[in-house]
Formats: sequence, C-alpha cells, structure tokens
Amino acid sequence: MANTEQQLVYRFSEGNATMGPLLGNKGAHLSEMTSMGIPVPPGFIITTEVCKVFYDNDLQLPDDLWNTIVQHVHELEQTSGKLFGSGNNPLTVSVRSGAPVSMPGMMETILNLGLNDTTVVGLAEKMNDQRPALDAYRRFVQGFSNIVKGVESNLFEKTLASHRKQVGVEFDFELTPEDLTYIIKKFREILVKETGEDLPQDPWDQLRQGIGAVFSSWNIPRAISYREYNGIPHHIGTGSVVMAMAFGNLGETSGTGVLFTRNPSTGTNELFGEYLPNAQGEDVVAGIRTPYPISWLEKNMPETYQEIGQAAKTLELHYKDAQDVEFTVEQGKLYILQTRSAKRTPIAAVKIAVEMVEEGMINQEDSLLRINPEDISQVLFPRFTDEAKENAISNNQLIATGLNASPGAATGKAYFNADRAESAANQGEIVILVRPETSPDDIHGILPSAGLLTLRGGITSHAAVVTRGTGKPCVVGCEDISFDETTETISRGNHRVKEGDPISIDGNTGEVFVGALEQIHPSIEENKELNILLGWSDKYRKLGVRGNADTPEDTQKAIELGAEGVGLCRTEHMFFDPERIPQIQSVLINAAEAQRLQDLLEKTTSNQSNEASVLTEIENSVAFRLYNEALAALEEYQTEDFRGILDVSEGRPITIRLLDAPLHEFLPKIEDIQNEIQALKASGDKETLALKEELLNLVDTLNESNPMLGHRGCRLGITFPSIYDMQMRAILKASASLIKQGKTVRPEIMIPLAGHVNELSFIKERVRSISRSVEEEFGISVPFKFGTMIEVPRAAETADEMAEEAEFFSFGSNDLTQMTFAFSRDDAERKFLQHYQKKEILPANPFATLDRAVGKIMARATREGRETNPKLSVGICGEHGGDPQSVEMCHNMAVDYVSASPFRIPVARLAAAQATLKSKKL
Amino acid sequence: MANTEQQLVYRFSEGNATMGPLLGNKGAHLSEMTSMGIPVPPGFIITTEVCKVFYDNDLQLPDDLWNTIVQHVHELEQTSGKLFGSGNNPLTVSVRSGAPVSMPGMMETILNLGLNDTTVVGLAEKMNDQRPALDAYRRFVQGFSNIVKGVESNLFEKTLASHRKQVGVEFDFELTPEDLTYIIKKFREILVKETGEDLPQDPWDQLRQGIGAVFSSWNIPRAISYREYNGIPHHIGTGSVVMAMAFGNLGETSGTGVLFTRNPSTGTNELFGEYLPNAQGEDVVAGIRTPYPISWLEKNMPETYQEIGQAAKTLELHYKDAQDVEFTVEQGKLYILQTRSAKRTPIAAVKIAVEMVEEGMINQEDSLLRINPEDISQVLFPRFTDEAKENAISNNQLIATGLNASPGAATGKAYFNADRAESAANQGEIVILVRPETSPDDIHGILPSAGLLTLRGGITSHAAVVTRGTGKPCVVGCEDISFDETTETISRGNHRVKEGDPISIDGNTGEVFVGALEQIHPSIEENKELNILLGWSDKYRKLGVRGNADTPEDTQKAIELGAEGVGLCRTEHMFFDPERIPQIQSVLINAAEAQRLQDLLEKTTSNQSNEASVLTEIENSVAFRLYNEALAALEEYQTEDFRGILDVSEGRPITIRLLDAPLHEFLPKIEDIQNEIQALKASGDKETLALKEELLNLVDTLNESNPMLGHRGCRLGITFPSIYDMQMRAILKASASLIKQGKTVRPEIMIPLAGHVNELSFIKERVRSISRSVEEEFGISVPFKFGTMIEVPRAAETADEMAEEAEFFSFGSNDLTQMTFAFSRDDAERKFLQHYQKKEILPANPFATLDRAVGKIMARATREGRETNPKLSVGICGEHGGDPQSVEMCHNMAVDYVSASPFRIPVARLAAAQATLKSKKL
Repeated sequence: MANTEQQLVYRFSEGNATMGPLLGNKGAHLSEMTSMGIPVPPGFIITTEVCKVFYDNDLQLPDDLWNTIVQHVHELEQTSGKLFGSGNNPLTVSVRSGAPVSMPGMMETILNLGLNDTTVVGLAEKMNDQRPALDAYRRFVQGFSNIVKGVESNLFEKTLASHRKQVGVEFDFELTPEDLTYIIKKFREILVKETGEDLPQDPWDQLRQGIGAVFSSWNIPRAISYREYNGIPHHIGTGSVVMAMAFGNLGETSGTGVLFTRNPSTGTNELFGEYLPNAQGEDVVAGIRTPYPISWLEKNMPETYQEIGQAAKTLELHYKDAQDVEFTVEQGKLYILQTRSAKRTPIAAVKIAVEMVEEGMINQEDSLLRINPEDISQVLFPRFTDEAKENAISNNQLIATGLNASPGAATGKAYFNADRAESAANQGEIVILVRPETSPDDIHGILPSAGLLTLRGGITSHAAVVTRGTGKPCVVGCEDISFDETTETISRGNHRVKEGDPISIDGNTGEVFVGALEQIHPSIEENKELNILLGWSDKYRKLGVRGNADTPEDTQKAIELGAEGVGLCRTEHMFFDPERIPQIQSVLINAAEAQRLQDLLEKTTSNQSNEASVLTEIENSVAFRLYNEALAALEEYQTEDFRGILDVSEGRPITIRLLDAPLHEFLPKIEDIQNEIQALKASGDKETLALKEELLNLVDTLNESNPMLGHRGCRLGITFPSIYDMQMRAILKASASLIKQGKTVRPEIMIPLAGHVNELSFIKERVRSISRSVEEEFGISVPFKFGTMIEVPRAAETADEMAEEAEFFSFGSNDLTQMTFAFSRDDAERKFLQHYQKKEILPANPFATLDRAVGKIMARATREGRETNPKLSVGICGEHGGDPQSVEMCHNMAVDYVSASPFRIPVARLAAAQATLKSKKL
Repeated sequence: MANTEQQLVYRFSEGNATMGPLLGNKGAHLSEMTSMGIPVPPGFIITTEVCKVFYDNDLQLPDDLWNTIVQHVHELEQTSGKLFGSGNNPLTVSVRSGAPVSMPGMMETILNLGLNDTTVVGLAEKMNDQRPALDAYRRFVQGFSNIVKGVESNLFEKTLASHRKQVGVEFDFELTPEDLTYIIKKFREILVKETGEDLPQDPWDQLRQGIGAVFSSWNIPRAISYREYNGIPHHIGTGSVVMAMAFGNLGETSGTGVLFTRNPSTGTNELFGEYLPNAQGEDVVAGIRTPYPISWLEKNMPETYQEIGQAAKTLELHYKDAQDVEFTVEQGKLYILQTRSAKRTPIAAVKIAVEMVEEGMINQEDSLLRINPEDISQVLFPRFTDEAKENAISNNQLIATGLNASPGAATGKAYFNADRAESAANQGEIVILVRPETSPDDIHGILPSAGLLTLRGGITSHAAVVTRGTGKPCVVGCEDISFDETTETISRGNHRVKEGDPISIDGNTGEVFVGALEQIHPSIEENKELNILLGWSDKYRKLGVRGNADTPEDTQKAIELGAEGVGLCRTEHMFFDPERIPQIQSVLINAAEAQRLQDLLEKTTSNQSNEASVLTEIENSVAFRLYNEALAALEEYQTEDFRGILDVSEGRPITIRLLDAPLHEFLPKIEDIQNEIQALKASGDKETLALKEELLNLVDTLNESNPMLGHRGCRLGITFPSIYDMQMRAILKASASLIKQGKTVRPEIMIPLAGHVNELSFIKERVRSISRSVEEEFGISVPFKFGTMIEVPRAAETADEMAEEAEFFSFGSNDLTQMTFAFSRDDAERKFLQHYQKKEILPANPFATLDRAVGKIMARATREGRETNPKLSVGICGEHGGDPQSVEMCHNMAVDYVSASPFRIPVARLAAAQATLKSKKL
C-alpha cells in the first residue's frame, strides 16, 4: 500500500530507465529518452503503486492524487503552449498503460483524450483541416465508450461499416467531415442507449475516468491469462502514462511508424520497420491500410529518415541492445513515443548477441547472459513459420492444445496404431503416431514417426521422455480430443481426423492442427553465431555437460552437440526390439524357479549329498535351461549394444544404468493376452497357448498397486541377480574387446533405485567377481567405475554411507522429485498440478524446474557424499539436466556435471555458463 | 578368526557370568555357579571363538586345541578321582552346546561319552547295578550314531520298540541287562550298516568326534531357522561344554529334575518344578514317564529338597532374577547342571518384576528395564493356551502361518464375505472374516467379526490397520491358503474349510488352525502388577503417549489404557457407514461441476453483471444442489462424530486428521458397478441406472497409476475445498456446542499429505474464516490448534517453513517410510522385503521398526521446526508409535509424544520409560 509520503506522479524529466518497477517499462524509458534529449512529447506517469492502491481501495484512485494530476496537466499546458479543454489550440493527451514487464497489447490505451464538441473545433482550426480532427474525435468517442464504459466495440464498427456502404466508400479515411459528424452523433447515441449517459464534455472528467479505466485494464481476462502464461506476478500492477498527443494524421508530412534497429527475424544489422503516412498508430495495428517499408521514408523524407535512424541507433547504443521504436511524425516533426528492447526470434537473438561483441558494443559475458537458454533449443528444432500458424488459426485448423512435451514441429499422416505407423513409415510416408496413451510396446511405432501425439499422459511420461530423447516433437495430454475405437477416428467438435489424414503438431506450444503447415529446419552447423556463442559458454562454464543416449547414434549426436560423455545410457529400451522381447519374457517366466535352484546350489556347495540332488534337479529343470539360454542370448545382444556405444565414445565416460523398469513393462497388457488366449484356444495351437497362459499368470503376479514404488531397479537386480550379472558381464566384455583393439573406454556401471548401501555392496561384490573372470578371459585389465543413482530419498539421506561403495552419484531428479513430493508424475500433472500452479501453491512444475527443497536434498547429499569420498563424482541425469534454472541450481550445489537429452545439450552449455557468470556477479 | 595367543579352553573355575559371548550362556553360568560354591560337576568349556575357527577352517578344530583338551580331561580325572577309558571307576562326560544367546533344544548334546565295552563294566561295578550302566551305554550308542554319524534316530527307536514288544514290557526301564546287551549289539549293527564303521571304542576318539558334532550342530536347519526367527546373528557361534556325568539313574536315592524359583506361568513366588527319581534328564524331556511335582521331594527327600531349594534361592538372589535350574541327584548327592533366567509368560514376567521390587531385591528402574515391552501387549490380548496349541499342532490342525498383523487369538466360524459375516454376527455367531484381500468396503464385515484372516496383504495393509485399531486379532498374507470361488472354500493340502466351519487364528504368531482352540482373556484392570508397572513407567518416562482412535468407544478405551489424548483421529472410517456412502458418492459425482461454479462465483464477485449470470447458472445446476445437500448432510453426521469423541476426551487434546484417503476408496470396484449396470439395464430402473453410470464414469476418472502418490489428502482438500471446509466447520461446531455446556475441549485440526507450506496457508486461511463464523454463530470463542502431518519427505525437508503455519507436527511414519524408501508397503512386503531381510540387506522391516535414516529425517525436521516455532508440539502417529524400538528412537529425537493404537498404549508407556532409563545410563 502506498503511504502518503510517496511521490505518486513523476514527470518524464524526473524518471529514468532503472525505475521500471515504479513507473512501468514504458514510462521509465520515456523518462530515460527525455533526459537523453530524444524528442518525446511531454508527459507524466502515475506510478504502479497507485495501481496497487486502486485495487486495495475498491477500484478508487487515492483522494490526494487528483490535485497532483491537475497540476501536472497544467505543466503540460505550459510546455506545449496548448490548453486542456480550450476551444483554441486545445491540449489532447493519450492515457497509456505500462507495466514493469512488457505485456504488449494486453491492456488498454486511450488516445485523443480531451476532445469534446468545443475542442474538436479548435483542433480542426489548428490542423487546418476538419477531417483529421473529426476522425480523432470519432476514435475517441469509440475508445472511451469501449474502454471506460464497457460498450462493445462491434456496435461502433457495424455503424461505421453500414455508413461506408451507404456513402459508397471503402476506407474510413475516405469519409468526409459531414460523414464523420454524422457518425460521431450516431456513436454517442449508441453510448447513451447502452449506458444511459452521453460522452462527458468535461475533459477533466474524461481524464479521471480514463486513468481509472487504464488501471482497471490490469485485470481484464486477457491480461490475467497473459500474466499466468508468462509467469508474471499479479501484484506488481501497471503504471499509467499521460502524454501530449502527437498527430500523425495531419497530411502528407505527417505519419506514424515502427522501427527495429536490427532485423528481429534474422538478427541482421539493418534498419527494419514500417511507416504509414498521414495516419495514427492505431491504423498500423488494425491492418486496414498496408504500411510501407521503412525505406519509403529514406526516399520520400530523407531528413526524417536520417533523424529517426540516428535516434534509433543512439537508443541502441545507449541501451546496448536492439530496440523497437515507435514514432510519429507531426507535420515533419519527429516524436519518439516508445522504445523497448526488440522482441526477436531465437536465431536473431543469437546473431545479435554475438555480433554486438564483434562490434565491441558488449563483452562476451554480457552476450552470454543476454540469451535465454530456452531459445537455443528453438534455434535447433524445426518449427512452423509464424505465417503458417497464423493462417492455420484463422482457417480454424487448430483443433486442440495439449502439453508441449518435446519441442519441434512436425506435419505428417496420422496413424493410430504403432504397427501401422511403422509400416507406413517404412514405405516412406511421414507419419505422426497418435495414441490414446503409449506403452513401451509402441516404441517401434514411435521411432520411425516424425512426431507423437497422445491424448493422455504428462510431459514426463514415458512416451514424452522417449520422444524427447529422439529430438522429435511430442504433444501429450491432449484430453480434449476424443478417440473413437470403432470408427478409428479422432475428433474434437466438428473436426474429425481419420487414419492417413495429415495433421501438424507443434511441440513448442502443444498446438495440434489438422492439415499440413509449412516448417523450417534450422541446422546447428550452419549457424555460425550459435557455434561461437556455445564456444564462449564452454570457456566460462564450470559445470560439465553430458548427454543422455541409449544408442550409438544418439551418443554420436550428443557428442556433436557438445556432450563430454554420456551421463545416462538406459538399458531397458534396448530390450524392446521385437527380436529380444521373447528372450526377456522367457527370462521373466522362468526367473523365480531358476533363481530358486541357483540359490539352492550356492547354499549347499558345502554339503556333498545335497549338492548332488540339487544338480540333478537343475539338470531336469526346463525352467533353468530356458532361463539361462535366454540370458545367454540377451548377453550377446547387450555386449553388442555396449560395444557400439563405447566405440563411438572415443574415451569419454559412458554411464550405463542397469535395468530399471518394472518387469511388467516388458509384458503385454492383460486384456491383450486374454484375447490372444481366446483366439489360440479356438486355433488349437497348444504350445503357444501354454506359453501365453504362463505369460498371463506372470502378468497377474507382477501386478502392483503402486508400480512406481515397486519391485524394480536394483530390487530386481538383487532378487534375480542373474539379470544384472548378465548386464555387467556384457559391459565388461564389450569394454575388454575394445581395449584389445587399442581403444580407450570409460564405462561406468550405475545402479538404479538404490536406497540402502547394502544394496550397493551386494551388487558390487558380484561385479568384482565378474570383472575378475572377464579380465582372466581377455587377459587384460578392464577399468570401470561403479556408482549409483540417487533418486530414492533414503539414498540421499544416507549419502555418506552410499559413498562408501559408490565411486559416483547421479541424481535421478525425476524420481527424486516424485518421492520427495509424493507425486506420481503422470497422475499429478493430470489431476492437480495445474490447479496447484494456478492457485500459486507451487511456483512451478517441479518436474520441469528443480524444486528448491529437492535441490536442498541434492546439495546436502553431494556434500555428505564427498565428505566420505572426496573423489566422488556427482552428476544429475533427470529431465532437469536440460532446464536452465535447474542447471543454475546444479552449478550452485557444485555437482560435477549435468546430463541432458541430446537436443538440450546446447541449452545446458549456455545455462551452465550463465550460472558461472551470475555467481561471479554476486 | 582366533589368534594363537587366545585361550581356547576355560575351566569352570576360570569363567564367570559376564563371559557369555566367549563361553556361551551355559558355560558362563556353570562357571559363575562354581565360584559361588554351588555344587556343579567339574568341567571345562571350549569357547565360541573355536566354533568360529571351526567354520572358517572347513569344519576342522584348530590343531593346537586337542592337547589342551586332553590336559583338561586329565584335570577332570584328578578332581573326580575317575579315569577316562578305565575299566575301573571310569570317567564319563557330557558334551553340551551353549550359545551366547539361549537357543533351548535347537542344538545337540551328547551324554555318557566315554563308555565302551570295557568302561561300561567298570561303571556297572561302581553303580553296583548293571542295568543303569547298560542303559547309559545304549543311550550313548544311539546318541553318538545319530548326532555324530547322522544315522536316523527312528531306526533305533523301531528296534527298541520291537524288542519291548518281543519281551512283553512297556517301558525301557523294565528291560533287563540281557535285553539291553542285546539291544546295544543291534544298535551297533545298525551303525555299521549305515556308515560302514562301528562305535569307536577309544574314548578320546569319541570325545574328538563328539566336540566336532556339537560345533556342527550350530548350523543344523532348526538352529538356523531359530536364529532367523529370533534375529540372532549367525556369526556368534556356540561354546561346547565338557562336564563330568552325574547319574540320576542309580536307584531310589538318585533322580533328576527342573526347578523354577517362581511359577513361570503365573509369576507366583513359589518353588515350581518337576522331579523324576531314578532317571536321567532325557527321560523327563522324552515324556515317557510322568515326573512328580517338586513337592514329591519335600515329602520323600526333605534334606535334598531343602538343599536344592536353598541353592535355587541363592541363585535367584545372586542373579536378581527368577531362575530355571536343572539338577541331578546321584545317590543323595545334589549336582546343579544348569541355571538360567527362567522363561516366563508375559503375565509372570510382570508379576515377578513388580514383586521383586516389593521384596527389595531390585529397584523400580531395573524392574522397568526387565520387561520386554512387546510382552505387555500379550498380557492384554486374548490368547490360546499353550496346551491347546500344542494339541492342535500334534492333531495336524495347523494349516498355515501368515503374517501376525494384530495380536490376540480368536476362534469363530469362517465367513468369506463381509455381508454374510455381518448378518451371522448379528445373529449372535462368533465370526472370523476370511477374505482373499480386503477393501474398505468390507469394514462392516470386519467390525462385528472376532478376527480377520486375509490371504494377501501385509501387516500394515488397510485391513490390518483397521483390525489392529479394534484390538482384534488379524492374520494377513497367508498366501499358502487358496480360495476357491466356485466351491466357496479355502484349502491347503488336505485341509478344506467351508463357510461356517470353525477356525482359529493366532494374531501373535500368524498361525491359522482348523477347529476351535481354548483361549484365555486377560484383563488389564485385574492385573494389579501391570498397573503398578505402568504407573512406574509414567513416573519415569519423558515422552507423552496418546492413542489412535476414530470413535468415542476407542477414545474411551485409549484413555483407560493410559493415553493422554488422541494423537490420530482418522475421519475416513466415519464415512463407510452405509447411510453415508451415498452422500459421499453424491459429493464426489458432483464435485467437479459444483466446485467450478463455486470458483466462478468467488472470482466474479467484483463484477456485477457476471455475478448475476453465475448465480443463475448455480440456481439451475442440479449438480450444485445435490453436492451441497450431500455436504450439509455429511456436516451433520460429522458434527455428531466429533461431539462424541471430544465429549469423552474430557479436555485431553484430540488430533483430528482431515480426509486423507484417495476418493476411489469410497467407490465400488469397477467390475461390481459394471455388473450392477448390466442387471439394471435388464430391470429397467432408469434412475438408478443413470446414477450407476455416473458412478462408473467417476471410478474411471479417479483411476490412478500410483494411488499412494496420488490425488488424496490435502491435495483433495485444496482442489475441492468444500469437503475440508465441511469437516473443519463440523469440528468447530461440535467444540462450540460442548463449550457452551461448560465442557473443556482441545481439538487439533491436522492436515494430511502436505508437502509445501502454501498448502497449509491455503487451508489455514479458510479455517480462520470458518472459525470466525462459528464463533459468531455460537457467541463464544473456540480455541483450536492447526497443524500438519509430516509424511511427505518434502514436508520434512522444509520443516522450518511448515512450522510457520503449523502449531504442531505429527509424523506419519508409515507414509514417510514408504516415500523415503520408495517402497509401496503392500507390494514391498509381498515382493521383496522378506528377501531383503533374509539377505540382511535390511536389518529389519522398516514398517515395523523405524528405519535409522527415516529417524534421522524426523529428528532434523523436529529440530528445524522448533527453530522456527519454539512452541511447536511434535508427535508421531504412524504404526511405529507402538513399537518399543521406535519409541526409544522417538524419545532420543525429543518429540513430545507418540500415538499408538489403543492396545499398544501400555507397550508405548513402558518403552518410553525404558528409553528414559537407557539414555540416563549412557
């Protein structure tokens, strides 16, 4: 709440650029420009504090404000030599909104305030033309009625349109003064009819109401939504700028325009903008007349062009950033109405930031800090062109907006089934896989598709993670779309898409379109400035950056994008190959029995008689044979898998996580097997039937009430040690064979879901023995590291103990977040997380940006782990590894590296550099 | 491993009672008695260290041991005046096992060692009777063959039985020397046939093999199982005691017996025991002859009776504890063979501990420390008599052993369905509800039943928690029993139980019997000594003890059992009343729509025109009406619920947890509704059909992949605030109405599943406004506390912030353990927790005994919470509140109180006192 001592109104000459929080951005920069000597119309600003009081005070302006405003208007009169409300050279003003954070077009502005039946005559005289004065009055009546009085705008537009038709003209500026006079009359009749009151003729009354309306526009729905979308706090309020009008509509030497000091699309260092002669700013925005490119000015008003160009460059130099400048020329005199940092595409942002260093305008550190790391990913991912999207939206092609799970854009034919998607893709079609939800079974359909759309699931769902890893766009949780199984169509409202129809998905925004949209595919190699920028990043950052990669191709890609190794190589995806699924299912079906026999054998080696009987039992056990055959087959596959990845790594560390997924992920859905069994019973294929019945039994047994907290990760590796043994042997054999070829490898074996140091001890003892036998077999020594995920809260809490066995920690921040919050990520995002964010119970989605408390846990675990083992290497391999804010937290807790999915690696590199620079500044 | 410097053999005169870890319990106490001057046969002990070497050394005794043993035997010869292996007055010895922890009967003992064809003649001469000497030789052959050589005992028993039959006698002691000579020959033939070797005639050879066999018996299966069951470490090993034989079978002035210094069943201070004249100890154990009560000695050998009585009392005074003394009388001379702390029933333990204080033998502190708090619960719960269980086991009535989820014992008719169980109980039958698994839907069947048996689920499953709260026995996870839906029977092997058949369950052990077993029902009021003991506990303990209670009856019960308030009053169980289920379902069905309208209304109060349209929409909304009607009805029920509990509390604090359960718990299973819908479609009842279809839709919507991490607790209270509002209003209204009647109430409103302080702020703001309106309505002030469960790791991690809003913390240690470990408790217990305990990866079940890391988290949260708010009250209300070890941890982390289910309250009181005493000692 403003206290009475506070200054509530500032002249432009009293403010400066640093006063944005109090004056709003627009006001602060108008002040700054004023003191720079840039030609700005005179004006003053009512502060954002007043806005807060206004809302605290039941939408009333503070009592003591009005006198101050009156005084400031009188000052304007003196400066301009005009008189407010006078029939002779009247002062007219604009009342503009302007928040501390730019919210372009979201709030209201009133132009031409001060006009009434008397002053319009004075204005016309001063203009030497009735038409622009009446036009301004007409606009004011419309604006005031709409913004202050809430009368719907289209009532006026209709009246205007019907009159144009009646008098046979196409554009408003073709209307005669008589027409305008008639229209003003009509407009005022509408206002009276709708509100019972006519336009106030007292300009002071107009001003008082106008200021109130501008403050009120802080809370109109589009402004609220915009703030919610952009994470702008609701309490900061807007300032209100009252400024003498400059008229761009006083004939051919007048006009209005917008100028960018550099090309905001490409970043090229050139003046870029538009100019509309004999017009007010509104006309440019409304798009009724097509403005000329800024070069028109160069030809037709070279002096003005020079003047505006110089002003613009002065501003760029002053602000050390590309500017977006609004100006009006009133009878040859230039007025700058606004300057702000130019919004630009990510590509332009990078180019400008790098070139400004080359031009000596800023240094590398400033350049690095200027780029939003998120933008880097947009430079890299394909995207739809802005025009294509705008057109599609106006053509009603946008059918839904889901969650933007993986960036990029794709157009392709919709397929509703992974098998059909795969075969269509194999025949060269570009495919978008559309599924109600996905399971790992769909992986063969996801991989060859150009993008994925699911109707359910969150941004960290399996499907999203997989798809993100591939660098393809993915939209999930599109619950507004319904899927009709019988007709095999998806639909929303009138839109209906059948298999094979083209759709387009925008993974940056979550938008889903019917039909094809034009896209552009940027490439990192071609982007010279991006490479320079990332080079600087690597020079400044302290934090290592690795990539998450499950295949040699991904590993290669990660290295190309700057990864210093692989921080997370998941092994479960390797099993989803159709060739391997039967083997892993055979392992699972026979595991319990085979492991029982194995345990029995280990237990009874000291007792000769028992051992014999166990050996006989083993010899006769079909389960034992099948289990070990399948394991052997898998071991061969896995050895090849790891050879491939380690080979392309060229000596970089590769952290391989042993099997983590719950076993049921490798099995079909219960309904599917039941259906198969029904069919097999009819067909009489008894052998397959028996297998499927075993499978059904297994699926039933593996059913868990909370799979996330269930029998998976190292819990499986300990209850069924043979599976981990097989994986560890494969890693060491692959390494040994490469070493034999003279290559350098740095495998790191990582245990998932450990919560107790004894789990690590148990597995470590086994890997030691396996390593001895592999070293014996190959006759060389095979160096490897043994470490653990830290994703179970208990592991973090006992980091000192875990570090006794682990040579490295890798925070699995996804699961750690789940357990720390007790959120099931899919359920939470679907059920209450959005609600929590909306109600500001949580500041952000903790699955996207590392939560503060989770960060605290990680920092403590890092510290305590290193106290036990000073050589402990610590990384993070959750989704947060590619999130700039989380990367900064990781830098501050002094972990050694983050690991991100390949296409987030450049983001992480820049974010890590920024983190170093920011902490240096503190 | 023993080093060569270590003393491997100790004379009885060299040891003492404190040397149990080295000498084993038996040896240590034989030593102690020797130095006390108690008549003990001479002997020596081979240490437990030797046992460890024996196992490290491939079952070989250390090389340097044998000479030492020989020397010690020579000493025995000198002390006893007998000669080992001599045909003239030969020395015979027993070789006994004896571990540092008593493992009665689990390992092997060899008697009469040293007998052979020569020495048996010398023994007979010395005894003046051939029969006992030959009998001793016969027993030795059998024992040696079985224990050392592994020949099955029943081969000998068969031979013995057939010879008894042949010569027409009933008992072994009726056999003549000729019979015995023949039998010895036969026994040796069996030994030769089975092993190829005859009995070694060299007594030194016998001794060497005998000692090896005793050490080997450390690892026979029943010993391993016993240790696993009792949590005795496997590495501590057994000692081996070699002791001169005393013969109780040398005629009428000889005999053998067992004496308890106090009655081990009742605790009464009286000599209690048995005596068998002319017999060796074995005969008492074998149960072939019935021993006399100890009073027989008083009449027939008064001097001996006096002597043994005095020795026993000397031992009791010395050890300050009731003793269990084994003795032998050899021709009038008394030998004490063993003394140990007497095993006693929990009732006896309490009586003895209290009376010894009254007798001035021990002080209150020692008395309190002497009782295992677990035993207290056994004093209170009904249980089967030992005889009844022994008989049932020998009658093959024991069909399975599940998990002992709630103590006590019950016999009743098995019912397989909650409805039928309820109606049978209503007709006066005693019912055991048997279910494959239970859901909250079964509550109406559980409550009137005498006990619960489930085939699946863990000890902390819903069913177990509920049943434990009622103080009724419960056995869960009895997976060996199968349930046949079609025949409606349960079965295991040949046992088959159909509905209505009697079964008995022992909640202390998890045993399930067919048929009825005799039980006894102890009562706390009648147990004077227990009351005294608990009174002392209250005097010493620092930790408060509250009870978990959901009803006035439970609250009353908890107070009777010593609770200082209710630490956890769960509100969900209150909704399972059949009258309320439709109301809560109506709330759920209409919640989303009603809440949307409510939110809309709250949002638009500032905008007149919108408000009107929202009000109209609300007026026309059936959902809004139904929702609010149902909420109003529930509010009335809840107000009465809370009035009842607060009324009986008489000013004690009552901590009421707002709704915690996931909503789907209030809904039927999906298959059940589908079936109902099918039926309704046929019947044409359209109104009910529509309702069920809505219900089906709701169940489908509420489905979650990990309900434990899902949309429940305060997450529901925040997304649907009306439900918590209703509960909070009911609590405050109930309080207000009691205050108006002049009563004192201390309600505490507790928020479940909070993880972020903003959740608390959101709800606290609402309860403040509700409290204002209730205070206005009743015209009085209603004091209450507002606090939170700490069960989500994030809540613990941000305890400093949580304490800004919370006046109290209550650790929900069940859920905190689940989240900290990432264990789903049901799944974990069923899938891998047993395996983890068996492999010693976890030292204990963390759901039964607080894990160290979870404790560390709680301790830190307590400390950090109090740093923010020094007045913060901290308690624990998970299952651990009734576990003695966990209670000790809670004492050490300085929480204010534990809360336990009513029947665990006395356990907690004693455990809390012990914790104080133990920490005082440190």
